[in-house]
Amino acid sequence: MADESVLTKQSSDFPRWYQEVIAQAELAENGPVRGTMVIRPYGYAIWELMQAELDRRIKQAGVPNAYFPLFIPESFLRREEEHVEGFKPELAVVTHGGGKRLEEPVVVRPTSETVINSFFAKWIQSHRDLPMAVNQWANVVRWELRPRLFLRTSEFLWQEGHTAHATAEEARSFALRILHEVYADFFEEVLRVPVALGRKTTREKFAGAECTWTAEAMMRDGKALQMGTSHELGQNFSRVFDITFLDASGERRYAWQTSWGASTRLIGALIMVHGDDFGLRLPSKVAPWQVVAMLVREDERAAALAKEVCGQLSRAGLRIHLDQRTEVGFGRRSVDWELKGVPLRLEVGPRDAAAGEVVVVNRAERKKTTVPADQVAAYATAELEAIDAALFAEARSMLMGRTQEVQSAKEALEAAQDGFAVIPEEALGSQEEDLLNQAGITVRCITERSFMRVDQDGKSVDPVALVGRAY
Amino acid sequence: MADESVLTKQSSDFPRWYQEVIAQAELAENGPVRGTMVIRPYGYAIWELMQAELDRRIKQAGVPNAYFPLFIPESFLRREEEHVEGFKPELAVVTHGGGKRLEEPVVVRPTSETVINSFFAKWIQSHRDLPMAVNQWANVVRWELRPRLFLRTSEFLWQEGHTAHATAEEARSFALRILHEVYADFFEEVLRVPVALGRKTTREKFAGAECTWTAEAMMRDGKALQMGTSHELGQNFSRVFDITFLDASGERRYAWQTSWGASTRLIGALIMVHGDDFGLRLPSKVAPWQVVAMLVREDERAAALAKEVCGQLSRAGLRIHLDQRTEVGFGRRSVDWELKGVPLRLEVGPRDAAAGEVVVVNRAERKKTTVPADQVAAYATAELEAIDAALFAEARSMLMGRTQEVQSAKEALEAAQDGFAVIPEEALGSQEEDLLNQAGITVRCITERSFMRVDQDGKSVDPVALVGRAY
Repeated sequence: MADESVLTKQSSDFPRWYQEVIAQAELAENGPVRGTMVIRPYGYAIWELMQAELDRRIKQAGVPNAYFPLFIPESFLRREEEHVEGFKPELAVVTHGGGKRLEEPVVVRPTSETVINSFFAKWIQSHRDLPMAVNQWANVVRWELRPRLFLRTSEFLWQEGHTAHATAEEARSFALRILHEVYADFFEEVLRVPVALGRKTTREKFAGAECTWTAEAMMRDGKALQMGTSHELGQNFSRVFDITFLDASGERRYAWQTSWGASTRLIGALIMVHGDDFGLRLPSKVAPWQVVAMLVREDERAAALAKEVCGQLSRAGLRIHLDQRTEVGFGRRSVDWELKGVPLRLEVGPRDAAAGEVVVVNRAERKKTTVPADQVAAYATAELEAIDAALFAEARSMLMGRTQEVQSAKEALEAAQDGFAVIPEEALGSQEEDLLNQAGITVRCITERSFMRVDQDGKSVDPVALVGRAY
Repeated sequence: MADESVLTKQSSDFPRWYQEVIAQAELAENGPVRGTMVIRPYGYAIWELMQAELDRRIKQAGVPNAYFPLFIPESFLRREEEHVEGFKPELAVVTHGGGKRLEEPVVVRPTSETVINSFFAKWIQSHRDLPMAVNQWANVVRWELRPRLFLRTSEFLWQEGHTAHATAEEARSFALRILHEVYADFFEEVLRVPVALGRKTTREKFAGAECTWTAEAMMRDGKALQMGTSHELGQNFSRVFDITFLDASGERRYAWQTSWGASTRLIGALIMVHGDDFGLRLPSKVAPWQVVAMLVREDERAAALAKEVCGQLSRAGLRIHLDQRTEVGFGRRSVDWELKGVPLRLEVGPRDAAAGEVVVVNRAERKKTTVPADQVAAYATAELEAIDAALFAEARSMLMGRTQEVQSAKEALEAAQDGFAVIPEEALGSQEEDLLNQAGITVRCITERSFMRVDQDGKSVDPVALVGRAY
C-alpha cells in the first residue's frame, strides 16, 4: 500500500488538510455567494444517512416533523430581547419581493423559535394539548464573516426541535432526554464520536435560553466542536408569545419549553475526528458505500468473481459498489476510495479469481487480508463492526489522553494549548472565564470528571469545567 | 354513520371546501409573512411518505441527491434571458446581510438551474463525465400575489433534478424517462391520480426550456393541475454557463440538459382529486396511519382486543394508530379520522369484544363490515388494496367522463367550462390559443386521445391539445 499521501499531513497543517479532504473526497465546495456551500453527492449521501438515523431517534422520542416558513417578520425576532441581540449581527434581510419594496422587511430564519412559538400560542389551549412537540429539517441562515465548509457557513442544514410542557421539571427532563437518547446515542453509536455532556455557562448558552445542554467532541487537532445542543427555554418565549394553557384546576399558566438542534456541522466533526493523513475514515452506519469491490484489471474470471461477491454482500444487507473502471489506474482508484473513507475495499484480480480468494483492505487500519471468496460476506460484516469499535476507541483514547486535570484557570491556559483542560467548577468565576476567553479559550461545558452522562436532574456530584479552543 | 358533514359541500363552494379540509384535517396554515405556509405534522407526514416514494424512483433512475445554496447572485439569473424574464416578477431579494448592505444583492432561489449549471461547468470536462445528474430536495421562493395553501405559496418545498448529456437524443430520452418512470408511475401507482402526459405549447413551457413535458390531472371541480414537469433545456444553459466536454474524437461540445421538478403542490392535488364532502380520502401508500383502531368506550375487554388487533396489523406491516381517547366523544373522533382521510377505521367496543369481532369502516366507500378479530390483518391488507384501486378508478372515470372531444377552439371554450376539452392539434394556432387564454382557459398539453404515455421519441400519431381551466 502506498505510504505517500496526496494530502498535506495533519501534523503539518491541519486546516489545510481539512480543506483538501473536503475537495478531494468530493464532499463540498464553496458556493458563489460568500459563505454558502454546495454539498456534493458524496457528502450529501453521508448527510442523508445521518438524517435517517437522527430522524428515527427523534420520532422515537415522540416528536413528529413539520415545516415552518423560511421568512420571519422582523418584528417577531424583536419580541425576545436576548434572542434578537444574539442573532442581529447574523441576519439576512429580504427587502424586496415580487418586484416591490416590502412594507415590513422579513428576515431569513436564523432559527425558528419565534415563528414556531407564534403557532404554539394558537395550538395550545389546555393542559390536554401538552406536551406539544415538533421537529423540522430545514436550511437556516446566519451570515458568516469567516466561513469554513461545514463548520461555519452562512447557510446550513439542520434539524430543530421545539417543545412545550406543563412544568419546568418536565421540560428539563425532556431537554435531557433529547441530549441523551437522541444526540449522545447518535454521536457515539452511529458517528462513533465520543462526547462530553454538560451544561453551558451563562455566557456560552443560547440567546434566549435559561440553560443550554451540550455535547462536545475533540477534533484531531485538540480543538473542541459543539456537536449538538438542547436548550431549556424556561418561560422566556411563552411569555412573549403568550403560550398559555388551562391547567387541571382551571388556572391559566405559561408553558415551559425546550428547543434543540444539530446541523451539517456534524460532517465537519466526522472528518476531523476520524480522518487521517490518507483521507476520511467513515464509520459503517454513515458510509454511503460500506464496501467497494475493485476489479483490478480487465479479466473475465475476475469480473465474474467480483460480481458474485457483490451479490453475496448485497444479500447480506451491505451497501456495496462495484468499481469496474479498469481504464483508470488501479493505484489512482485505490487512493480515491481511501480518500473517500470507504470502510472496506475488496481487490479482485486474475490471480485472486484463480485462487478463489479476494483481498480485503481495512481502511481504518490500512491492513490487507486474503479471504476465501465464499466467506467474504461474513468476514466483511464482522470487520465493519470491528472498524466501528476501533474508530470509537481511538477517538476516546485521544479525548481522554489529551485532557489534563488542573486546579485553576491559569493552569488551564497552558493545558488547553493542545487539548482540553478540566478545572473544578468552584475555581471558575466570571473573571477566570474572561482570562480564558482573552486567550481564545472557552468553557465548553460544566460536566463531571468522567464526561459521562449527566444525571436526570442535571446535577453532578463533582462538577468540573471542561475548557479548550473551539471551532 | 352520520351523513351530516362538518364541511361545506364540494358542490356548493369548492374553494371553501378546500380551505376547510386543510384547516380541519390539520394539514397546513398560512404563515405570518404573506404567501408562506406552515405544514402541520399530519400534512408533513403525508409529504414525507411522498418524498420517500419519489426519492426511491429518482435514485433508481441513477440520480443522486446533492444540495446547492439558497442564495444566488442576481447576475447569475440575468445570464439566461428568457429564464430571468420568466422569474423576475417573482423574486425575493436579500439586500442586507450580517448588518451591512450587500455589494451585490442576492436572490432567494426560485429554481436552481443557474447555480447548479455554474458547477456543472466546473465538474464536466470530458464525455466520460457524462451523463451528469443531481437532484435536490429544497425550499424555493416565488413571490405570490394570490397565495393559496399548497397550490400557490411564496415558499414551497420541492425536488428539482438537473442533468447534462452528450447528445440531444439522450437528453430527450432522459427527460421522458423521468416523466414516465418517476412522475407518472408515482402519480398513478402511489397517489392513485390518473394523469394525461404531453408536451407544453411554446407559451406554456418553462422559461429557458426548449420543450417542457408535463403530467396533468383533473381535480373534482373539473380544473386541471400540473403535477410535475420535465424540461429539455437544449443547450440554452450550457451555452451561457459554458458547460462543454471533449467528445471521443477530441472535439469540444456543449452539453444537452434536462431539469424536472415536483412540489408540495401535490398535496393540493391529493386533496382535490380524492377528497369528498366528508374530508380527505388518502390512498394507502401516503396515509400516515393506514388504519386507526378506535376504542369505542372505556372497557377492559375491548381495550385488550384493540391492542391485540393493533399488534396483529403492525406485524402485518401496516401503519396503525390506537385511539384510546375515550374521554372524547366517539362521534367526534370518527368525524376527525374521516376528515383526515385514514383509509380504514376499526371500531372496538364491549359488544365487539364479547363477540370476538371488530367493525371495519372503509373510508373511500363509507362502508361498515364486521370482521372476526383474528382475520383483521388479512382483511385490512386486502381492503387497502381495494381502496387504492377504487380511488384510481373513480378519478379515471371522472377524467374521461368530463373530457369532451371537440373540433375547434371555439367549441372548446364551451366544453372546458366544467372539465377538459380535446381538439385536434392542427386546429390550434397562436390565435386560437389567444382566444382560449382570454377566457381563462389554457392548453394543458399536446397529447394523444387516450392521454396515454407519449412515445419515447416524444411524438404521437394523432396529436390533440388538451385544454381546460387550471390551478
